[in-house]
Order: sequence, then C-alpha cells, then structure tokens
Amino acid sequence: MSEQEWIAAGSLTSVPGFTAGTAACGIKYAGRDDLALLLAERPCAAAALFTTNKVQAAPVLFDKALMARNAHGLRALVVNSGNANACTGNAGLDDAAAMADAVAQALGLPADSVFVMSTGTIGVPLPMERVLKGVPLAARALDPNSGPAFARAIMTTDTRPKSCALRLALPSGARVTIGGSAKGAGMIHPNMATLLAVVVTDAAVAPAALDALLRQAADHSFHSISIDGDTSTNDTLLALASGAVGNPAIESNDSPDAQAFLVGLTAVCTYLAQEIVRDGEGATRFVTIRVRGATTAADARQAALTVAQSALVKTALFGADPNWGRVLCALGYSGATLDPERVVLHFGGMKVLEHGLPLPFDEKTAHDLLDVPEVLIEADLGLGAGEATVWTCDFSYDYVKINAEYRT
Amino acid sequence: MSEQEWIAAGSLTSVPGFTAGTAACGIKYAGRDDLALLLAERPCAAAALFTTNKVQAAPVLFDKALMARNAHGLRALVVNSGNANACTGNAGLDDAAAMADAVAQALGLPADSVFVMSTGTIGVPLPMERVLKGVPLAARALDPNSGPAFARAIMTTDTRPKSCALRLALPSGARVTIGGSAKGAGMIHPNMATLLAVVVTDAAVAPAALDALLRQAADHSFHSISIDGDTSTNDTLLALASGAVGNPAIESNDSPDAQAFLVGLTAVCTYLAQEIVRDGEGATRFVTIRVRGATTAADARQAALTVAQSALVKTALFGADPNWGRVLCALGYSGATLDPERVVLHFGGMKVLEHGLPLPFDEKTAHDLLDVPEVLIEADLGLGAGEATVWTCDFSYDYVKINAEYRT
Repeated sequence: MSEQEWIAAGSLTSVPGFTAGTAACGIKYAGRDDLALLLAERPCAAAALFTTNKVQAAPVLFDKALMARNAHGLRALVVNSGNANACTGNAGLDDAAAMADAVAQALGLPADSVFVMSTGTIGVPLPMERVLKGVPLAARALDPNSGPAFARAIMTTDTRPKSCALRLALPSGARVTIGGSAKGAGMIHPNMATLLAVVVTDAAVAPAALDALLRQAADHSFHSISIDGDTSTNDTLLALASGAVGNPAIESNDSPDAQAFLVGLTAVCTYLAQEIVRDGEGATRFVTIRVRGATTAADARQAALTVAQSALVKTALFGADPNWGRVLCALGYSGATLDPERVVLHFGGMKVLEHGLPLPFDEKTAHDLLDVPEVLIEADLGLGAGEATVWTCDFSYDYVKINAEYRT
Repeated sequence: MSEQEWIAAGSLTSVPGFTAGTAACGIKYAGRDDLALLLAERPCAAAALFTTNKVQAAPVLFDKALMARNAHGLRALVVNSGNANACTGNAGLDDAAAMADAVAQALGLPADSVFVMSTGTIGVPLPMERVLKGVPLAARALDPNSGPAFARAIMTTDTRPKSCALRLALPSGARVTIGGSAKGAGMIHPNMATLLAVVVTDAAVAPAALDALLRQAADHSFHSISIDGDTSTNDTLLALASGAVGNPAIESNDSPDAQAFLVGLTAVCTYLAQEIVRDGEGATRFVTIRVRGATTAADARQAALTVAQSALVKTALFGADPNWGRVLCALGYSGATLDPERVVLHFGGMKVLEHGLPLPFDEKTAHDLLDVPEVLIEADLGLGAGEATVWTCDFSYDYVKINAEYRT
C-alpha cells in the first residue's frame, strides 16, 4: 500500500489548482452563505454517480445530460442549498441550465463545463433572481483557502461541515492530492440519498477509469451507510481530476497507480460518508456493523445493511440495550443465506450469542458497553468468506422531532 | 356478494363448537392471564402461514412439522405470552412438544392434534414448570364465552385485545360463522411479523382449499400492514374449520361457496390486521395508503408498502405535515414502474400534486386535514389498472421510547 498522509483541516481547496467561493443569496436561510462555487484552473476529467430514485431533480437531469456530452472538460461546480429544484418541471430544468450559464459567464468558461447541484426544499421554484445575483458574488470570492466555506455553504440539516484531504505517492512517482466535501444528514441510504459530495484531485485520470474507480470507492463508503433507509431526488457524487501534477494518466482501473489512487479515493469517500452518519439526524451513537462468514460478499452486505436499517435495532441502540434478538431477527429476514445455529454475535466486543443461543451476560455491563458514542456490532454467519462493513446511527427522539417538523 | 353480518363483541367463541380457557402462570407478567387454550369440539381442517424469517422459534418449527403430519384433524391451540420460546435450541423444541402433550393429556385429545404458539421475550427458556401447571387450570376454565379472555391472555405490548366474528350465508344455503383473534403491536410487517392470529369457523372446508383461501385473505390483510418493517421469529396465522354446520365441504377455492367464504374470511382478517395497526407501538394515527394506476397489482402493492415503511413519511404524519415530497420520493425508490409526471397525490382527500408538480394549498388547512386519527393518502400513478391498499401508522416519540426500553 502506498504512503498516504491526511492533511490537517483538509478540504477541496487543499488540492492545488482548485479554488472555492461562496455567497449569501437568501434562497431560504438568512444570515449564511447558500451558494458555493468550485473552480478548477484546468479542464478536468469527470465522473458522477446519481440518485437511483425515479423522481429526479432538475440538476440531476441536467448533469446526466452534461456528463454524456462532456466528461473530460469540466471546469466548475455550482451548488445551492435551501432549495432542491426538484419537482419543478420544465421551468426547473431551465433554472438549472441558467445557473450553469451564469457561472460560465461570470468565470469566462466554455459551455458544457459547469456541473450543478441543489439541495433543500422540494417542489418550490428556485428564486432565480437571488441565485443569479449571488453567482458573481461567489465568483468574486473565489479563493484557494475557501474549501471550508464551500463545505458550510452546502449544508442543510447538517450540524457541521464535512471536508477532508490527503496526499499520496503514486507508484509511478507523482505525489497527488485528493480532497472532498459532502453534505447530508437524513434520507441517507445506499444509492446516494439526499447527499451531495464532490471529490477532486490533481492526478491525471481518464474519465472511464475515474468512473470505474469512483464506483468502487462509493461501494465501500457512500453506498455502505444508512441513516433512515429513504433515498432522495438530488443525490450526486462528483469526481473531478485535473491532471495538474502531470502523472502518466491513469487509464485503467487495475494498474498499480490506479490501485494506489483507489486506496486514497476510498479513504476520502469513507471519511466523508462516516462524517455524514456521525451527523445523522438525531443520532447519539455511531454504529459500525460488521458481517463476516457470509456465503458471499453481497450476502454480507445485504445482511449488514438490513441490520443497519432495522428501526427496532436502531431504537434499541438508542437505549443502549444489548438486544441481540433484534439483530438476529434482522439477519433472519435480510434474505442472506443463514443458518441460525452457526451465527456468532458480538456487541461492543462482548460475545452475546453463539450456535443460535444467547450467552449469559451481565445486563449492566452490556448496557455500559453500548452506552458510548461509537458502537461495534459484529456478526459471524459461519458459512463462508463473505464480509462487509456498514455504518449507521441510532434512532432517537430527536430523529422523530427533526422529521416531524422539517419540510423536506 | 353474500349477506354478511358482524357479531357485536364477537370473538373466537362466537363460533359454535369452540371454547376457550385461560390461566395465569406467571411466565413473565404478574397479575394477568398468560396462557390461553382454544378447543374445537370436532377435529378441524387446518391451514397455517408462518414467519418467513430464517430464524424461527421452536413452536413454529413444531407446528410446521405438525401441519405436514396432520392438517385435517386439529382439536386445540395453546398459546403463551411473555416468552417466545425462540433461540432456545433443542430444549425449546422439547418444550413446545411438551406443551402440546400436556394439552392433549389434560383434554384427552389424540396426539398431533394440538397447535402451539408462543410470543414474548426471546432467548430465554420457557419456565415449563409454570406452563405445565397452567395447562390444567386453563383446561378447567374452558368455556363458550371466553373468547375475549383468550384475546387478552395472548397480548404482549398490545394495549388492547383484538377479536371479531361475523356470520354469512353460503350460496349453497348454510349459515356459517367466522371468528378470529390476534395479537401484535410492533415488528409488524408483511410476512407475518411478531403477530399471532387464529381464525376459526364452523364451515366445512378441505385443508387444501382452506390453505389457498387463507393465503388470499392474508395477502389483503395481514400482508398489507406495516408498523416498523421488522419481521420476527414467531409469527403465525392459523385457520381451523370444524365443518360443524354440515355444509357441502368447500373443496376448491373458486366455487361460489368458496368465494363467499373468502369474502368473510378476508373481512375477519382485515379487521384484525387493522386493529393491530391501530394499536401500533406509539401510533397516534391510522394511515391508509391507496395506490392505483400502477402497471400491475404487484407494483401497486410494492409502491404502497414502500410508502408505508418510510420513516420520513411516518414521522411527517406524526407531525401532521402534508409532506407530499417524501411520499413521492418513496414511490420513486419503491422499484415500481413510475413516471413522476403522471403521478397524482391526494392527502386526506385534498389534491396536493399533479403532473409531478405540487399544487398550491393552504398549509394550515392541510395540517388540520392530517391532524386527525385516521388519514388517507392516495397515489394515482397514471400508468395502468394495478391497485393496492395497505395500512400503517405514524412514527412517534413513543415508538422510540417503547422500543428503546422494551427487550423483545
């Protein structure tokens, strides 16, 4: 594995050649920035993953068409928070295109070089007058130290911004940087639920290889988290590779350089995905669910995600209740191949079930083991070599409170 | 449709030839009955549906084997609450068999004529000494008016007993009675999650026809409700047909008699299933989700159940928030064929979305429409003739409270 070094307080603009700028447009929130620009000094190879929801917001439709036209020359990303531009019909599509045009004009960029993301309330037309006034303000604010401001401007119900960056040496010699930023705290579920994320690098990676590597990284990060099982209309993960460091371009996904880059890309995506879970709506605990011994990796993943989504498991975790029965039940209905008599369960490192039978344990000790901010649940299905790890959070009063009161 | 008449305060023992008896064994609860017997004066044709969870409790394994041996001569059902006899290994299987044997002995019944159900905590051996002491007490209490007592004795987190009965005339002339009882308030989900139910009749129905009719009735009742999406180890729906009224036995599921009987059977099952949702853990609203215009009935059902399971939809309903966006999103990720621009949504009879676009409505009016005990959400997908109705409840603080504190 190649040498890899996290950058303290890293962000998108830790990557040389990327600048960010933000502005307060008053789209929905008062007294905070809600428009964010990211500019690459060189045209970038791009790859993107989008929500699998059949209801797709205007920017998602715009970006999908854009990626089909131009996955090798993106220059900028514009993001607004407070309004998702979803369920807004043809006018919404026009608005997404107008946002991209305004950015291209303000920065003197060619057509088809600006990617658009929106997040917030759905079903309300974007206040385009405000957005278009904000674009030149954000453009003027572009700055090589504004990655953290970018991360703050894209927040909705997030309680804190999410950014990171790392450097790594490619086997062929170049030292590259990867930085990322994300938002999302509810509706988080595999397949890109109400989640916006962007990862940028100065490495040279061909679009097809970037796409393949991004999908692999997402499987082990953004697609391995669950907060409430709901997916949304706007979720998008974008990767941009500028090639500024001049490495021999990564053209396949199995070269030594590609594999080293994948390790770094996965690390950045995993950090951001875990930050999203830690900031889950109403979450009081960060929960790692590790399944091993499944017949296949896909089975392990299905089992782990089913446990991660169980409302009964998640409420028990809120109560620090070592409720092995609910975990075993979730494994039982997950669809994964299962022989209950082979299952071994650990809660917080303590073995609670073996051969399908619970082991005697002290309730108070077990409760104390779980009454902590980070909890590990391990299930060994005892059948094969398949394993998977997913991350989730508990289900609290505050989750209900936040979602009974917030209009998506 | 045949004439059908509900029986006031109907229960299992509204059906001539069935008696019930209960006893307090102190299995877990103090000061209440926790063992219930149901006795048929004649051998009954039987059909049963069991949990699809791969982790199955001892009584489920016992009953599956019993049904394979004897689906035409059941005489009795014994149910205990407070302990599920699940995750109890071979000793648990022995305990389930011993319960059946004790009942057969106390009532002078042949072997293989007693069905067993258990519900409550899992992973704890049944206190057999208490159970076996209780069986003769319950047997001595057998009485043609104890259907309501039976319904109370099988409760766990239920806040109220669930029973009903109706009479109907078969086209061939006989007047038959169908009665039922159920328990369950959490872990309710299609495929028989922590739910025990028994339906009895004095009609003559052959086992194969009874099985086919029970499956059809369950699809439109117990398999069309969701409380929290979790399924459990013990869920069982049993149907017993004594044939005491002497009608020409229903041998197929498509004769006029069969169809008339199915209407009644479905009505009883639907009543019980809806009662379970109304008593959903922490529920403040009973929610009907009706999907029409789907390409197929299966698509409609999948769409409706996905909406019914969405934590975001359910928390919004708790807040009486007319959050059409969350419903549309859930339709979008349900897997059902969908064209967002054809979807029409009504909340409480008020149209809120058409052609994929929200309609203007007064927030206060909409909130008031939803701030009621029974809410109707209707989605017309505009694609075909498929339709389905499912029932669910909202997701409240109390759901979290109950499940953070209760050890299943």
